[in-house]
Amino acid sequence: MAVVAKWMCDRDNSMFDNKKDADAYDKMLELAEGFSALLQQHIPDVDETKAEEFGIFLAKNKEAVMQACKGKVEALDEIDSKEADNIRPISAQG
Amino acid sequence: MAVVAKWMCDRDNSMFDNKKDADAYDKMLELAEGFSALLQQHIPDVDETKAEEFGIFLAKNKEAVMQACKGKVEALDEIDSKEADNIRPISAQG
Repeated sequence: MAVVAKWMCDRDNSMFDNKKDADAYDKMLELAEGFSALLQQHIPDVDETKAEEFGIFLAKNKEAVMQACKGKVEALDEIDSKEADNIRPISAQG
Repeated sequence: MAVVAKWMCDRDNSMFDNKKDADAYDKMLELAEGFSALLQQHIPDVDETKAEEFGIFLAKNKEAVMQACKGKVEALDEIDSKEADNIRPISAQG
């Protein structure tokens, strides 16, 4: 028998084997929530789950977002559309 | 009588007195269109005008978006809400 250290992100109770991955995931969700909140402020009638998904999408692809903001707008077009298929809303995780 | 040089952004026919400002505006609208297109891909039933407005909002506040992506997520909360009131959809400009 053995005890194994695990790390939980308390935003959605996701579990990780190491703190680094848990921190990165937590930071990603924090950014996602920031984007989702902005979207919901600007488009109040947007579906909440879809807004969360879009926030997660932007957060997961923050490198492309940064490149676009720096002038390489085509970076947004280059985001792998398959990536988007892997995104689940926070409410569906656990 | 005199002739005066003007610069037009052909995305929405906005006029500028100098090329630098026209270029900056053009680049802002290009980024805005990129964000709007992503939003419309992910939330196909979103109102098109609202999606354009949100894209322009993100593009006008790209410095805050970049800061947030770099880890300072609270930069998104610090965007002046009055700024948002000045944003018009592309279709309303002329």
